[in-house]
Amino acid sequence: MTTQKTDELTIDQLAYNEDGLIPVVVQDAGDSAVLMVAWMNREALERTLETGDVWFYSRSRQRLWRKGEESGNTLTALRVAYDCDGDTLLVIAEMGGEAKACHTGQRTCFYRELALAGEKR
Amino acid sequence: MTTQKTDELTIDQLAYNEDGLIPVVVQDAGDSAVLMVAWMNREALERTLETGDVWFYSRSRQRLWRKGEESGNTLTALRVAYDCDGDTLLVIAEMGGEAKACHTGQRTCFYRELALAGEKR
Repeated sequence: MTTQKTDELTIDQLAYNEDGLIPVVVQDAGDSAVLMVAWMNREALERTLETGDVWFYSRSRQRLWRKGEESGNTLTALRVAYDCDGDTLLVIAEMGGEAKACHTGQRTCFYRELALAGEKR
Repeated sequence: MTTQKTDELTIDQLAYNEDGLIPVVVQDAGDSAVLMVAWMNREALERTLETGDVWFYSRSRQRLWRKGEESGNTLTALRVAYDCDGDTLLVIAEMGGEAKACHTGQRTCFYRELALAGEKR
């Protein structure tokens, strides 16, 4: 991915939703697998940028959480990109712990597929 | 990515939001770059699975759109995965046209980054 590190938008200028949240796609720095999609608020993003530890905002628990704080399956941000509309983030991360990003114990949350027409099962 | 083609959830069982939409991460089948994040409704997903052409639902225009219908920069779905919660899709796609997924003319929508602390500018 060719990117410009312009900081053209600041973290205050991103397009958070009505709840102050922005969706985050997490991609593995090693094999580029998409691992998970979660939410950050401004503070979670700030902590992530400052510490490298990936922080999210849990909508169900209504609090900040550091990925892996309980499971040990941490994420370390190497790069944080934002999209053309400034309403979605992409975090390129290294996996810590047992390298299982999903709470189910799978490496990635995207471990199941829908069949395309004509596809052999 | 190791996945199971179980169709464990059907497209009717996915967790669409209150507007009947589900977010979709699009990843390039070639170099695995994350290209864009957009929305599908049930019909856009059904059309995508049936035709292989990637369809989205435009929230601003409030209608279905086939990616590239105007720009020519189409996407062809090779695989469609869903996450552990069934509330996000991942489409692995081949780029058509000029291989520019972003409406700005960039290949990917994620062409700008935020600086991490301690990172050289």
